Amino acid sequence: MVTIKDSVHDHIAIEGIAADLLDTPAVQRLRRLRQLGTVGLVYPSANHTRFEHSLGVYHLARAALDRLGIAGRRRKRLEAAAILHDVGHTPFSHNIESVVARRTGRMHDEVDDLLGEGEIARILALHDVDPAAVTDLIAGDGEFGQLVSGELDVDRMDYLVRDAHHTGVPYGTIDTGRLVRELRFVDGELVLAEGNVQTAESLLVARSLMNPVVYNHHVARISKAMLRRGTEKLLAAGEVTAEELRRMDDADLLVCLRSTAETAETARRLDTRSLFKRAVWAELRDVPAAVVDADHGTVREYEREIATRAELDPDTVVLDVPPRPRMEESTSRVVVNGEVRSLQSQSTLVSALRRANEEQWRLGVYAPEGAADRVGRATEEVLGLDLDALVVDVRRGINATLDDF
Amino acid sequence: MVTIKDSVHDHIAIEGIAADLLDTPAVQRLRRLRQLGTVGLVYPSANHTRFEHSLGVYHLARAALDRLGIAGRRRKRLEAAAILHDVGHTPFSHNIESVVARRTGRMHDEVDDLLGEGEIARILALHDVDPAAVTDLIAGDGEFGQLVSGELDVDRMDYLVRDAHHTGVPYGTIDTGRLVRELRFVDGELVLAEGNVQTAESLLVARSLMNPVVYNHHVARISKAMLRRGTEKLLAAGEVTAEELRRMDDADLLVCLRSTAETAETARRLDTRSLFKRAVWAELRDVPAAVVDADHGTVREYEREIATRAELDPDTVVLDVPPRPRMEESTSRVVVNGEVRSLQSQSTLVSALRRANEEQWRLGVYAPEGAADRVGRATEEVLGLDLDALVVDVRRGINATLDDF
Amino acid sequence: MVTIKDSVHDHIAIEGIAADLLDTPAVQRLRRLRQLGTVGLVYPSANHTRFEHSLGVYHLARAALDRLGIAGRRRKRLEAAAILHDVGHTPFSHNIESVVARRTGRMHDEVDDLLGEGEIARILALHDVDPAAVTDLIAGDGEFGQLVSGELDVDRMDYLVRDAHHTGVPYGTIDTGRLVRELRFVDGELVLAEGNVQTAESLLVARSLMNPVVYNHHVARISKAMLRRGTEKLLAAGEVTAEELRRMDDADLLVCLRSTAETAETARRLDTRSLFKRAVWAELRDVPAAVVDADHGTVREYEREIATRAELDPDTVVLDVPPRPRMEESTSRVVVNGEVRSLQSQSTLVSALRRANEEQWRLGVYAPEGAADRVGRATEEVLGLDLDALVVDVRRGINATLDDF
Amino acid sequence: MVTIKDSVHDHIAIEGIAADLLDTPAVQRLRRLRQLGTVGLVYPSANHTRFEHSLGVYHLARAALDRLGIAGRRRKRLEAAAILHDVGHTPFSHNIESVVARRTGRMHDEVDDLLGEGEIARILALHDVDPAAVTDLIAGDGEFGQLVSGELDVDRMDYLVRDAHHTGVPYGTIDTGRLVRELRFVDGELVLAEGNVQTAESLLVARSLMNPVVYNHHVARISKAMLRRGTEKLLAAGEVTAEELRRMDDADLLVCLRSTAETAETARRLDTRSLFKRAVWAELRDVPAAVVDADHGTVREYEREIATRAELDPDTVVLDVPPRPRMEESTSRVVVNGEVRSLQSQSTLVSALRRANEEQWRLGVYAPEGAADRVGRATEEVLGLDLDALVVDVRRGINATLDDF
Repeated sequence: MVTIKDSVHDHIAIEGIAADLLDTPAVQRLRRLRQLGTVGLVYPSANHTRFEHSLGVYHLARAALDRLGIAGRRRKRLEAAAILHDVGHTPFSHNIESVVARRTGRMHDEVDDLLGEGEIARILALHDVDPAAVTDLIAGDGEFGQLVSGELDVDRMDYLVRDAHHTGVPYGTIDTGRLVRELRFVDGELVLAEGNVQTAESLLVARSLMNPVVYNHHVARISKAMLRRGTEKLLAAGEVTAEELRRMDDADLLVCLRSTAETAETARRLDTRSLFKRAVWAELRDVPAAVVDADHGTVREYEREIATRAELDPDTVVLDVPPRPRMEESTSRVVVNGEVRSLQSQSTLVSALRRANEEQWRLGVYAPEGAADRVGRATEEVLGLDLDALVVDVRRGINATLDDF
Repeated sequence: MVTIKDSVHDHIAIEGIAADLLDTPAVQRLRRLRQLGTVGLVYPSANHTRFEHSLGVYHLARAALDRLGIAGRRRKRLEAAAILHDVGHTPFSHNIESVVARRTGRMHDEVDDLLGEGEIARILALHDVDPAAVTDLIAGDGEFGQLVSGELDVDRMDYLVRDAHHTGVPYGTIDTGRLVRELRFVDGELVLAEGNVQTAESLLVARSLMNPVVYNHHVARISKAMLRRGTEKLLAAGEVTAEELRRMDDADLLVCLRSTAETAETARRLDTRSLFKRAVWAELRDVPAAVVDADHGTVREYEREIATRAELDPDTVVLDVPPRPRMEESTSRVVVNGEVRSLQSQSTLVSALRRANEEQWRLGVYAPEGAADRVGRATEEVLGLDLDALVVDVRRGINATLDDF
Repeated sequence: MVTIKDSVHDHIAIEGIAADLLDTPAVQRLRRLRQLGTVGLVYPSANHTRFEHSLGVYHLARAALDRLGIAGRRRKRLEAAAILHDVGHTPFSHNIESVVARRTGRMHDEVDDLLGEGEIARILALHDVDPAAVTDLIAGDGEFGQLVSGELDVDRMDYLVRDAHHTGVPYGTIDTGRLVRELRFVDGELVLAEGNVQTAESLLVARSLMNPVVYNHHVARISKAMLRRGTEKLLAAGEVTAEELRRMDDADLLVCLRSTAETAETARRLDTRSLFKRAVWAELRDVPAAVVDADHGTVREYEREIATRAELDPDTVVLDVPPRPRMEESTSRVVVNGEVRSLQSQSTLVSALRRANEEQWRLGVYAPEGAADRVGRATEEVLGLDLDALVVDVRRGINATLDDF
Repeated sequence: MVTIKDSVHDHIAIEGIAADLLDTPAVQRLRRLRQLGTVGLVYPSANHTRFEHSLGVYHLARAALDRLGIAGRRRKRLEAAAILHDVGHTPFSHNIESVVARRTGRMHDEVDDLLGEGEIARILALHDVDPAAVTDLIAGDGEFGQLVSGELDVDRMDYLVRDAHHTGVPYGTIDTGRLVRELRFVDGELVLAEGNVQTAESLLVARSLMNPVVYNHHVARISKAMLRRGTEKLLAAGEVTAEELRRMDDADLLVCLRSTAETAETARRLDTRSLFKRAVWAELRDVPAAVVDADHGTVREYEREIATRAELDPDTVVLDVPPRPRMEESTSRVVVNGEVRSLQSQSTLVSALRRANEEQWRLGVYAPEGAADRVGRATEEVLGLDLDALVVDVRRGINATLDDF
């Protein structure tokens, strides 16, 4: 048994299959993927990695497995899934996941190829564990997949407290001890035991408060959009394939951006934090549905059109349209009066938080400082927005909420 | 300048009028009043006092005054109010406040008599500060009274983080640094600056999560009700007057309860945590409005009737009807798009939290273990409740939410 | 199993014999004994109790027992000893322990009478546990007594982190996780495993840094000496017997002091923090050995003589002669190169810390403000000190180290 | 004024010259230099950067300047020095500093060239600050240089608490608030005010406890030695110049090592944590003085000889001879009885800690697993060590102290 010191959970004991998997190149690579990608440009202390997060998830998974009395082969598979659940991540974690997924067909939790070969496959075989079973758990499939990837999974419990600890923003501070302790399986469903409506709510509340302040902070979104754009160009320039990119680490990608002619300027901007500014920042209700639901290709076309009308190099305009807000935790199940019920049927807060999530959604158009006015006007024409009617208007310095971070 | 080490704010520097007031008997007495009264019977670490809280409030008040640029006489008055704001508390803080107030006509923030005489009056005079002005600030009157007692006051900021720190429940962990930094006075109103809707919401959310888990935990409520009942009997027995009681500390009250024949049994129960149990635990919608709004005398009559029907000593039945839920913070004001608005007009969360507050309201009837059934039936008859129709039913072991603390 | 929230260890799970013992009056009484007595007059947040400490000791003991693979009857006895180890404490914990012990012949860890009767005896019998065996463990006897009371006991691990947490002084922050994990039994001795010389040292260092700043802070010592004096007078006045005193809680003692004519003034001084001041504060090397080693009676005679010469009421002079410094942890055993060795033979730090401990020893003479000069001169004559030759001299405002807390 | 959220100091307000300097490429580059280099391979959470540390140093510097009443031009220079003090660091901070310094003649605190040109020079000029004055402060020159780089500097205060926070090792937790508050200038010397011998000691103790557990953990040392070796080969291969290397960030260096034929294997080993193992681990007293004091060239020759005798590729043997232990903080000055004295003359602990430091010194010889025996024997011959006589012997699994991290 190895004991590893962790700044969040203090001592993490790791043994058996997980200890063996820890030493594989695929897991060691997670040491060099920042958990929150460009959020570090807003919160300078947020340099934690997928590696320490994976250890944390394994730690909480073990505590949950102890409570649930899960042992034997099933436990081995779940411990493997916990330590491996993030090996499919690209550099900068979620930041460029979609760019890669459009070309490889794989999101970060689709890892059958990574588990089926090399060191990981060898170790799974050694422990007599089927890679396909672990792959399914990581994808959240089956009864026990819910523990690894579901509304009440230990992944989310770890990242909320870890992100709070490293950013310094207190809102993610949930009671992981209680959450893990109250997990139960009832008729094949992972639920929280009687009397935990509020415990479940606290998980939603934490996410809802962290969302705008941390995960969707506009500076993190702008730099993420710039990074995504740079990565698209790297791929277009043939410097790297999507499969290669998927296996890189943060250092590889940064240096690749710097040393490629087409992306050197983007790299310089990210390195020196000379970021684009918001030319437009619009709420869901102010944006035509066709724009909100536009596919990737259409969004790129809008971008080019805006640049053309604004008489700017297309490289200097970014249109950032996030997916419609959703709130997975709202379908968490809790036992109430002896019956399993969905949290949203029990909690007044859930629908309010869902509305709050929707209200926090923003479409952004970003461009170099100075070009904001022209880009704003061009956006009005191309997307059919009415900037003067926006409640939130960056031009008036409004919604400065988090500008001071 | 004196520097005092505090487990929440680290170092607290105290000087001038506040340092002088700190040494008065009235402020030193706060060392012996537990901040959360009987909550310590649920959370064993919650032994913090009104004294350390008063230091914390003074500390945050100074930070706010610095930010707001308030100096001179006004500042002196506010610093005095911060350090003195809790000198009017009874033993066990809010637990028996109403018992005393019914007889003295004074709640804990009505302190003109305490500031107008003795050591405090002498020091205020020395610093040329009018006691009446400080009294008004403590009562929350006037523009600047909002800082000491209002929706955005530093009192609430300190108690949320302090109660979280000492109970170990993370929900109260708010960002006091940001809150204090964003306070502004606009047209005589204390508001949060542009971009702080979510900062204001986080304060509400913290209170809403702390309420059922800490402040209204049923064990805290039961023991508080027993303490209140004991105190009523002390007064009825003529052992002590309400004015004397108001100036006692926790030790005085405990020993007085122990050594008075009529209350010795209550003292024994509190000392050994042999508490009454819930015979009834009913939600707002299940309780007739007449009962919810009944005055103190009527509630006492109900109690006696329930005891009579259950053939029990009236001393062993407690009917606990909390006031209707309210949520002061919902009228917090924030600047949005350059205008001062009330938080509830801006925040989807506010109305949800208000409903959540209402849903958490509970009427309780408490009695010794074993008598629950008889008391339950008697309560049905006297109050017109239908126990079988209750969603939340303690008889079925339901709503065990917090029983395991 | 019950889970209790603790501000230091987060969740503490308690079950079996310990859960049953928790509900006894003797253990519940610990809720009303402050862990650090008068230290709270220096560090206002230090209001934690023997009850939460006992829970913490039980928690660490269970972790150690898990690691050491101790189960069955032996484990049950050790869990009982952990939860009961402080039931013998007097009000204000160590502050008046010696006063009571001189009359009852029992220090706080001599508890055979308390375990052999009443609720505790009943529960021990129920679990088929011999009270005498538990008594021995609490006294530190036998191989396993070392876990409860010895150089490497879990008692010390809990109090260091708990006292640090509640005072806000960081020095006690040790790595309890590592300490508990590295405990081993080798040939009947409790030792730290190979490679833990520094782990053992960190425990000593923590105590050495906490000693002068917290445990022996002069304000804590002055108020403790005043409390001890008051208690002696209570006993002399026949208000209470030593046996009664031993079973009181903090509230009882405070109120008893207030309501007894002979001690009301002492109570007033403690309640209002109008403490005596240091008239003399002398290092070990400056004090004649006969004075350092004087027994209780002789010290009281010195006191009276000093008061007489200073023409003061004997009640207003306190001579405070602590026992010679000792450092128990220095005999901790660690495995080095496969052999069990005593820490002091392995660690350069140990002898330095012992000398530092000696240098921090101080004899104090305390008296009301204003009387310091007269008392100083009288002390010179009576004890044969030369105040002008003292390196540390309170009269010159020197050694103000901690005066600002 | 900008406010930045920091996980150690919470909110850091930054304004004026420091805010302007923050946006320069040279300071932004610090975001991509890990504070502790390869220590992250031991403590997975230790991913904090020179950037957040620089903000912390600036924050503490401002607090100290407020206390010391330093304003005007002098303050501006000191604030600039605080934010710029680490711009001279190489990738992986101290890890490869000596490699670069041997070629450039500059250690990390020799930054006249970096301050004299580009954006930094422009901003200093704008604020009318002489770059040479700031350079001197960073080098620790002059009365005020002590604040930035000296025995009591704010640099050390920040890194101790920050490294403790991010590694999870509690030993670095010092009381920065008290330290900053007690700083004084007496006759041009930065000292701690009367009564702070122990405060000064706590700084030494923290460093002494952090040294072996964190900074000199053998895994961190092995990987650092491998990284240094790889960097030497990069330079020898002409892939990069020392001046270029000095301005790179961690990503540049990692990728450069990976893509250069001569260093690809080293990069692979570091990336996958397939590190060399200790073949020899010897204490100061067991190593001939000539070896301890050998210069860089001689050490490299020893290495080659060991490899030759062991019949190994010279690339696979690393001889790691740290400089003789020193303890700068021991000359800290404190005021005692009104006079400024050096800490070592006042503190029993200092000499003990110095001896402890000496005892913790280790010479290491590292080689791939499996080659340890041969390398051990070869080292005996080349360096004149007697492995069988070593008290600490890695071959017997002894000194496993920290192996389990």
